[in-house]
Amino acid sequence: MEPIHFIYLCPAVAILALIYAYMKAAWVKKQDEGTDRMKMIGGWIADGAMAFLGREYKVLVIFVIAVAILLGVSNQMVGAEQNTNGLIALSFVLGAFCSGLAGYFGMKTATKANIRTASAARKGLNEALQVAFAGGSVMGLSVVGLALTGMGALFILYTNLYPASASDTNVMNLVLNIISGFSLGASSIALFARVGGGIYTKAADVGADLVGKVEAGIPEDHPLNPATIADNVGDNVGDVAGMGADLFESYIGAIISSMILGAAWFGGLNAVSPGAGMNGVYLPLAIAVIGIVASIIGFFFVRTKEGGNPQAGLNMGTFGAGALMVIGTVIAIKILLPAGGITVENFVTGETNVYTWWGISIAVIAGLAAGIAIGVLTEYYTATFKKPVGTIVEASKTGPATTVIQGIAVGMNSTTFPIFVIGIAIILAYEFAGLYGIALSALGMLSTTAIQLATDAYGPIADNAGGVAEMSRLGRDIRSRTDKLDAVGNTTAAIGKGFAIGSAALTALALTAAFLTKMQGKVDIDAANPYVLVGLLIGCMLPFRFSAMAMVAVGKAAQDMIQEVRRQFREIPELRPALTAAQKAESEEREPNEEEKKIIQAADGKAEYTQCVEISTAAAIKKMIAPGLMAVLVPVLIGLYNVDMLGGLLIGVTISGVCLAIFQANAGGAWDNSKKQVKEQGHKVWGEAYDAMHKATVTGDTVGDPFKDTSGPSLNILIKLISVVAMIIAPILYAIHFG
Amino acid sequence: MEPIHFIYLCPAVAILALIYAYMKAAWVKKQDEGTDRMKMIGGWIADGAMAFLGREYKVLVIFVIAVAILLGVSNQMVGAEQNTNGLIALSFVLGAFCSGLAGYFGMKTATKANIRTASAARKGLNEALQVAFAGGSVMGLSVVGLALTGMGALFILYTNLYPASASDTNVMNLVLNIISGFSLGASSIALFARVGGGIYTKAADVGADLVGKVEAGIPEDHPLNPATIADNVGDNVGDVAGMGADLFESYIGAIISSMILGAAWFGGLNAVSPGAGMNGVYLPLAIAVIGIVASIIGFFFVRTKEGGNPQAGLNMGTFGAGALMVIGTVIAIKILLPAGGITVENFVTGETNVYTWWGISIAVIAGLAAGIAIGVLTEYYTATFKKPVGTIVEASKTGPATTVIQGIAVGMNSTTFPIFVIGIAIILAYEFAGLYGIALSALGMLSTTAIQLATDAYGPIADNAGGVAEMSRLGRDIRSRTDKLDAVGNTTAAIGKGFAIGSAALTALALTAAFLTKMQGKVDIDAANPYVLVGLLIGCMLPFRFSAMAMVAVGKAAQDMIQEVRRQFREIPELRPALTAAQKAESEEREPNEEEKKIIQAADGKAEYTQCVEISTAAAIKKMIAPGLMAVLVPVLIGLYNVDMLGGLLIGVTISGVCLAIFQANAGGAWDNSKKQVKEQGHKVWGEAYDAMHKATVTGDTVGDPFKDTSGPSLNILIKLISVVAMIIAPILYAIHFG
Repeated sequence: MEPIHFIYLCPAVAILALIYAYMKAAWVKKQDEGTDRMKMIGGWIADGAMAFLGREYKVLVIFVIAVAILLGVSNQMVGAEQNTNGLIALSFVLGAFCSGLAGYFGMKTATKANIRTASAARKGLNEALQVAFAGGSVMGLSVVGLALTGMGALFILYTNLYPASASDTNVMNLVLNIISGFSLGASSIALFARVGGGIYTKAADVGADLVGKVEAGIPEDHPLNPATIADNVGDNVGDVAGMGADLFESYIGAIISSMILGAAWFGGLNAVSPGAGMNGVYLPLAIAVIGIVASIIGFFFVRTKEGGNPQAGLNMGTFGAGALMVIGTVIAIKILLPAGGITVENFVTGETNVYTWWGISIAVIAGLAAGIAIGVLTEYYTATFKKPVGTIVEASKTGPATTVIQGIAVGMNSTTFPIFVIGIAIILAYEFAGLYGIALSALGMLSTTAIQLATDAYGPIADNAGGVAEMSRLGRDIRSRTDKLDAVGNTTAAIGKGFAIGSAALTALALTAAFLTKMQGKVDIDAANPYVLVGLLIGCMLPFRFSAMAMVAVGKAAQDMIQEVRRQFREIPELRPALTAAQKAESEEREPNEEEKKIIQAADGKAEYTQCVEISTAAAIKKMIAPGLMAVLVPVLIGLYNVDMLGGLLIGVTISGVCLAIFQANAGGAWDNSKKQVKEQGHKVWGEAYDAMHKATVTGDTVGDPFKDTSGPSLNILIKLISVVAMIIAPILYAIHFG
Repeated sequence: MEPIHFIYLCPAVAILALIYAYMKAAWVKKQDEGTDRMKMIGGWIADGAMAFLGREYKVLVIFVIAVAILLGVSNQMVGAEQNTNGLIALSFVLGAFCSGLAGYFGMKTATKANIRTASAARKGLNEALQVAFAGGSVMGLSVVGLALTGMGALFILYTNLYPASASDTNVMNLVLNIISGFSLGASSIALFARVGGGIYTKAADVGADLVGKVEAGIPEDHPLNPATIADNVGDNVGDVAGMGADLFESYIGAIISSMILGAAWFGGLNAVSPGAGMNGVYLPLAIAVIGIVASIIGFFFVRTKEGGNPQAGLNMGTFGAGALMVIGTVIAIKILLPAGGITVENFVTGETNVYTWWGISIAVIAGLAAGIAIGVLTEYYTATFKKPVGTIVEASKTGPATTVIQGIAVGMNSTTFPIFVIGIAIILAYEFAGLYGIALSALGMLSTTAIQLATDAYGPIADNAGGVAEMSRLGRDIRSRTDKLDAVGNTTAAIGKGFAIGSAALTALALTAAFLTKMQGKVDIDAANPYVLVGLLIGCMLPFRFSAMAMVAVGKAAQDMIQEVRRQFREIPELRPALTAAQKAESEEREPNEEEKKIIQAADGKAEYTQCVEISTAAAIKKMIAPGLMAVLVPVLIGLYNVDMLGGLLIGVTISGVCLAIFQANAGGAWDNSKKQVKEQGHKVWGEAYDAMHKATVTGDTVGDPFKDTSGPSLNILIKLISVVAMIIAPILYAIHFG
């Protein structure tokens, strides 16, 4: 097969992935929905999720149209080639559409899978795992499927519009420049889904916890709590759709930047022996295709036995897919690269390097290994009964302040090794395959996104299933099965977060390399240049401001939520006696007795869930505008002022963003699990200190909520979005500053 | 006068400053010490402070001797010029000695001034201000006096040893290289004083607050609290000696790096018209001398009236000194620079630039203006009844978690404008005077250190005076005078912290520029080089780890303190009834009645203060070793591995360190003042919500304590120390990598 045919293979395999996703979705749909009560609760959650998505997409449509027009006009203004304007806008719109559609598919299935998982838990653990994982798979497969279908289709279209691209590097660069719009589209959705979703989920969670658990003293997910549905919707909005859009953006960013660098290194600018033609452009597509196939095979490894550990099943799937991907990738590289390797001139050092098939393989594998290592490290820093969480539990003995300080210390400490891991991956990738290698290592990390994201999205489904089981008053044994699934979900969520951060960092660097390449070496990122230095400084500061904005947004939205829940507790006559009854049972650590049950059931359905859903939705939509605009406007303004400063900014925002993201994600995860550990150990271990310790860790967990689910993950988007914007406006900046 | 004579003028003026400091100290000493009880309390605090200093200096002597030997040996190993080994070690030892001596002088007077300020407060507000400020002046004058005496003496010695230095740039570089050791010595003391002092002060503070205020419910500074003396010692150790050593390091770092860059730009490497000779080397000394004279004149402006605002007096002093400094500096630059300006080749851009007298003046003034602007911004973000603190007060209504989140958000937000200010100063300085300009802008910020530090050190003296007044049971009206002085002290402390961070950032950049210059352009800090990029990443991560280490150290030490205070409360029979009586009065917000007073007085002196002093001292000494070693070893190890990575590391640690330092300092300050604001507004404003709000803000304040007084300020040291170490080992690294 000629390498050029990869561009057809690519959407073909992607469509296969979509068909498989459809089959999974259909299978989930036909599973048993459980009792009428479960159906009703599931319906509320699904409605809430779709209401949010609907509102979000309405705002997005306006945003996308506006940016599409701007893209066209701005290109025209600086006199870029006329006929590409519309095409960039087309790529952009399609990118946004594909990412949005993937989120829709994923959420649709996830909000069906939750009650069905709870229902299957009545039969057995493996049955429940299968449903939950199938639900997550739809998100994973939709993301990679739609990403590659969309981008592949565009690539075919443009290479046919510009047929010389197969041999002419300049034409290929033009094609890739147009396709970059697809990446910007994906980034726009990611911004809204991650930031908006993050605000949504934590406003609901903090509101539900503070009034429900802390003030009223009723259990989590209790049907009397008006914010419960919003809280469960939030899990889907944040961890399914948000995470999906985040990885969609990384995935596309890594592929497109690899292609741009491939064109530069293999085909043109720096190729001393351009004999390899455009193979450097096709290789990333080949790796993506292999990753999809490997992931689908990996899906079949995921299973567990009654009484077994679902984690082992999930690990089998991801590690299996990773191993297959490595084998396939090495073969693909061996086929696509010329036998003697490729000779390129390093434009940094001016030296001539030969990159061999095994060198490039090392770059890809380094990325994959780094992703796994970061996941493992994340788990260590955030898991119950490991040392870091233990120090927070210990600190909780002296109250909330020391709990918070120790959590911050754990989070800050946890930055060290992931940074070393990323550093080692960068150096290995670069030494063996140059800047192209850095982009390929990002892609290596992301090639098995399908199964990685499936395990991520499994988490909130299992979490939701637990909530549904609680609200539907399924028995203790069933709840214990969903708890087991949920516990695994917390681990996969932690690993997934580490993975998302690592891939965001490498992708941002790859996009920055693509930006530099598109600026044809005219941009200086030497820190001895004071403009670069100031760019680095400002870049380093931005994630702090962005985090603060996200936190404040959560705080304000949570305030509204708190007021609303308190109002309902005050004003709805049936709720007060039911709350008192539920609180009494909870404080005595027992199930409600018959009389109490009667009082509680009398209040059934009286809590006005939709009010709370509406508050979270409105707050999320409104509050994501400002940080979003900042992420888009800062690189544009700084780029117009000074391109070297923009170069510094891109690096600064990436290095500071990744440190802050790891810090926040791990501090949040560690606080969450220190609360769980204290609760699990209970009075038995801690005696009379228990109550104060539990209260202190609840405070820690609440502080950590926006850290780990809003501001932390939003930084992934910030660092990628800023570099995508820079890459997109590179030709315009070139025309303005050097044209 | 020939420019060369500045090297004699410099120690001459410095000795004048020391004489003036001696006069001030003598004046303070002969002020009235107050009652016997005040003398006794003052004695405890002074003994505690000196005990800490003694222990710290014992460890330091070992450290200094070890490093001095290493410096000699390592130079010899790589075959550097034999005769400079001992001299670098000599400079190093003298630098450590001068900084240590300045800390001793400052502390000695500060611990005398506290009771005398309380005593003077019985006469009037201005009397008290005069004593407190005179006490602070001794620290300010000792720092600049000893810094310039020591360095000036070395400069005279070495220029006489190497007489060709007045005309030969290579010889001047040799001389300056030897003098760099003085800077490293100052940095070593700064590390121990800032990190150790920071751990000391917060272990005592957190311990005293958590058991005394929160658990036992007795007022702050109550004599029944065994940790009270340690807490008051901590104010001196952290805010007098720690801040003094911090600014000593910045001051010397800015002067020496300016001289090194001056030699490079005016005398040699890049000077197209080396007609200006060594004037670029003498100019920093001239600016320092002018700054001292301006500061001493400024001292006379500091006074207030009864009922007036002491802040106005302090402002008059600092702004007056700043204005005089500007005038003097512009004249000095006009005299020292050739009429047509100086023509140099910019080794970054390769362009030839002409730097005029007014251009260089702009660089110096930009630094001074930036320092003031950062101070003003810091005040805005941390002051009571301003918007940022108001948001924290608002958030405290919903408990400690939202208080903590909002404080973190305020701190993170507050990074934006200081970073812009620093960025603007860098660009202005560079545009008008190149890298030399950046170093001069750091010096411009620091030239009035004498009066700036006097206002800083005034803070803890006023704070201590309040504590002494409380413990000595002076009347309410006297306590209200010391409170007024203390309130001003909190503002000056906030401004001082901002100033210390800003100057640390610019000094670190200047030192980095000096490092690059000493590596003769062989070090690349282009982020397109992956080693530089990884250096940036690791550099960006280090402040996170360093902060975590400092926080954990405080946490552990505070735990020990808490156990000890609880033990005393439990085991000392007289304390229990006295505590109950004191708590009753405090909870009813009144003075103890006669009967209660009798019970409390029966317990007088029973609390074992020395035990608590010992715990803080031991913890501080022990816990500063690990972060200190990290700061010293990381640049050495990375430099040995790859010098480009070291270059990236220096930039990364500076940009991330300054953001984290601003974040932590301002979050801590804002929490502290939100607690004060809630307390001031009290039940009158907040009604029944008051108690919960107060408790929430106390939690916030406790979280902020290590932020603002330990980990935050320690970052100033980290970023400077790493670049000083790099600068010192530059010749060795050059010999190893390029020799």
